Order: sequence, then structure tokens, then C-alpha cells
Amino acid sequence: MTTPKYTLYELVAHAEQREAQTSHSFFVLRSKLDLALLDIPYTRVPLAFEQIKPTLAAAGPGATVPALDTGADAGLVVDSFTIAEYLDEHHATESKYLFGSPDARRFARFVQLWADKTLLLAIMPLLVPLFVAHNDAASRAYFVARIWPADDVARMVEESKDADRVKENAAAVRRLLRVVELYLGASDGRFLLGDVPTHADNVVASYYFASQINPVLNPLVWEHPDLPRVAQWVKDFKEVSGFSVSYPPPPAGVVAEL
Amino acid sequence: MTTPKYTLYELVAHAEQREAQTSHSFFVLRSKLDLALLDIPYTRVPLAFEQIKPTLAAAGPGATVPALDTGADAGLVVDSFTIAEYLDEHHATESKYLFGSPDARRFARFVQLWADKTLLLAIMPLLVPLFVAHNDAASRAYFVARIWPADDVARMVEESKDADRVKENAAAVRRLLRVVELYLGASDGRFLLGDVPTHADNVVASYYFASQINPVLNPLVWEHPDLPRVAQWVKDFKEVSGFSVSYPPPPAGVVAEL
Repeated sequence: MTTPKYTLYELVAHAEQREAQTSHSFFVLRSKLDLALLDIPYTRVPLAFEQIKPTLAAAGPGATVPALDTGADAGLVVDSFTIAEYLDEHHATESKYLFGSPDARRFARFVQLWADKTLLLAIMPLLVPLFVAHNDAASRAYFVARIWPADDVARMVEESKDADRVKENAAAVRRLLRVVELYLGASDGRFLLGDVPTHADNVVASYYFASQINPVLNPLVWEHPDLPRVAQWVKDFKEVSGFSVSYPPPPAGVVAEL
Repeated sequence: MTTPKYTLYELVAHAEQREAQTSHSFFVLRSKLDLALLDIPYTRVPLAFEQIKPTLAAAGPGATVPALDTGADAGLVVDSFTIAEYLDEHHATESKYLFGSPDARRFARFVQLWADKTLLLAIMPLLVPLFVAHNDAASRAYFVARIWPADDVARMVEESKDADRVKENAAAVRRLLRVVELYLGASDGRFLLGDVPTHADNVVASYYFASQINPVLNPLVWEHPDLPRVAQWVKDFKEVSGFSVSYPPPPAGVVAEL
């Protein structure tokens, strides 16, 4: 077996258990989905937060995950949209592509900005308590010092133990996903741009797969009766992509029983 | 001068002054923009709320504004996206079009759903107090009975007199428009799909033009330093479309002085 040309640097929750872990990062997950949809083999390098900068230092101060080492002139490509553009340019075929047209690339960019600036804020209260529960101590310290304000994390951890707040937070996520629900209702295919999943689907799917860290999110969001077309899209996406994730079960007491 | 083939049924605020009024409806405004971008002449039929159903009754119970009488086999076309599809199908040229490609139509649909399900809710507190202030009595009664809950309208009218709440509400609109700001920052043209404005631009522009009913919205949103690319887009859009609106000034006491 030959060594794959590509290497993907991924974020995982726990340094010592890193080889066994699935990344919980929305941004890493969509790059993995991009690679999966194009059938591109790659070597994964899972890293905990504090390992990212030292590992990628040679690529400059801005380097972060996901980072794709192309083993080619392009060197290390960072940023999930830029990675998608690189992969599409070099690996798209007639039947498998991440965009499909210049306007499809614009569509994907708008969907990605909508998701990362809107959906992300709404879904974080439902995921952060699990992220920090699975983090090793150094990763937890890094997260509250560098990624998300400590007092906001503390609030989310408290809210997560309150079944009513969890339901309210999930309803807020469903309200945002109603844009996708209505869009799918008017669309001409199973996926966002027809019958082939593309990077725009991968962006939304990156939120679905990261959501699997909290088992209440399937009944309360992704398979909720308010969003029947989203639920069907999830089913179709999993079937066509063959992608799956595996996260440890929530530690006792982190998520309220509903 | 020949009679135009098309007739557009529009919503205006005041039955008696209807001929002199510019529609304040997001949905009507975007159809007018679609017609303007394609240089299509039309006869306008301005209607106050209570005139809509009687006037359009022959077209069936679901008929509402905007409604385009095509004077052709298609008869009366309703729903702003369906009107855009009809106009594009019959009038697009190489240089002027509302979509430009199948993926551009999908892009426009997503942008329209995002705007009408998200941006609309955030901007209404800043517009509703002016809508009802300019309404005749019957239109005001219709609005609170059929379009928007009376207690919510009363709350918006109170909030509009409080400068701090107006600023908070405007900041919430700016946060949503940040998706457009970042998109324009990464885009390859002056407009959402390149160097020609299309229906997707018209959707966002319909919120800009309706905003002109409240003079605080230009400094607080559309020309705010947080959104420099949106401000440039507004300037370019007005220049290329040549479109303008004219609303009466706010009655004294409706909007807080800032």
C-alpha cells in the first residue's frame, strides 16, 4: 500500500487518546467530507489544541486546523473553504465535485458564511458542554483561554443541565435550519445543488456530524418533526457519503435527561 | 405611447393617496427591481391592504401582492420568486438577467429564504412603527388583525421611541448583514454574483429600499462603518439600477432622536 499524497491535520479533544478520536471541529469535519466525496485517500494527523501551533509552526503563525499538506507546490493549505477550492480544482470529475460551477462556488460560500456566523452561535450552547467534558485538562484550559470566553462556557455548562433550556436552545437551532428546510422543499434534487452532494452540503453536514457528540440533538433538531426535509437530507447524505463519526458517550450529569 | 403588456399590483400604505405612494413591501419592491433590471415597462396598480383581495379575487383565494398580470397565457403570477422566474424565462438577455445559471437561481432562492426568514424578523421593529404611522386607519386595523400581532406592534412602537433600543435593534440587523459583508469581501465582483446585479441582489436591496421609510437606518445599518462593503454595494446598486423610492418623512415623535 502506498502512502497517500495528502495529510490532513485535525483537531481532537484529547492529546493522549488522539489516534482513536474523531474530530469534533465543524471546520475539520467539512474538509474530511470534501476528501470523502472526492474519494481522496489521506493520512490523518490528529492534534489536541496545544499541539497545533508547534506542529504547524513551519507553515507560519496563522496556520491552524484544518490544514491540508498537499505534498506539492501548494504546500500547506489552510481554511476549510480554501481547502475545498484546492481539492475541487485538482480532483473534480464529471460526477464528483465540490462546486460544479462558478455560481455553485458562490452558493457554497454564502451557505458557509451563513452557517459559521449564525448556526454556529446557536448550536454552541448544545455542544460546548460536551466538548469540554471530553477535553483533556490542557485542551480545556486552551479552549476557555483562546477559543471561547470562560464565563460563557460556564453558563453553557449550567444550561445544559436544565432540560427546559436545552429544549429552548434546540428550538433556536431549528428556527435557523428552517431556511434549509424551506430551501429543500423548493429544490429540484435530494441535495442542495441537485442530486449530487457538494461542499455546501458538507458545510451543513459538518454541523450534523459534530452534533453527534450530544445524543439529544438528533431527536431535538436533525430528526425533529418540524424539519422533515432536513431529516430526509441527513439520511440521504449519510447513505451517499458513507461518512460516519464516533464520539464517546456523554459523561454522567453533563446533559439533562429530557 | 403604447400600453405596457404587464401590470404589477403593489401594496401601498394609504388608500386615498395610493397613486402618489411608493410601495414599502419588501416583496413588491424586489419585483419592481426585477422589472427595472430587465428594463420591462409596466402599469402599476397600487392597492391598500383592504383593496387587495377584492381586486385580485378573480385570481383565486391565494392571490396577494406582488401579483404580475402577464397579459398572456400565464395570467396572474404571484409570489416574488415565481415572478422572478417568469420574468427571467421570458426576458433575460446575455447582459441582463435575474439568475444567469441554474446554480444562480438556487443561490437566489437560498438568499431570499435567509433574508425573509431571518433579516425580516430583525428589521421589522425598526420599520413597523413607520408602516403603521403612514397607514390609513383601515390599513392599520388590517395590519394588526391579519399581518402582525397587535401586542407585538404596540411593543415595537414603544421601543422606537427609545434611542438605546433603536440602536440595539439596528446592531442586531448589522450582525445578520455581516454574512453579506463577509461574502462581498470574498467575492469576485461588485454584486453578489459578479459584476451584474441579479435577483439575489434585488432581495437584499428590497430591504435597503424599504428601510428608507426610517431615516435612522442608513447611518445605523446600510452606511454604518461596521459594514463598509455593504455600503459600497448599496452605492453601486443604486447607480446601476437607477432605482429610487420616496416615502413621506416620519411623523413627529415616532422615531427617537439619536
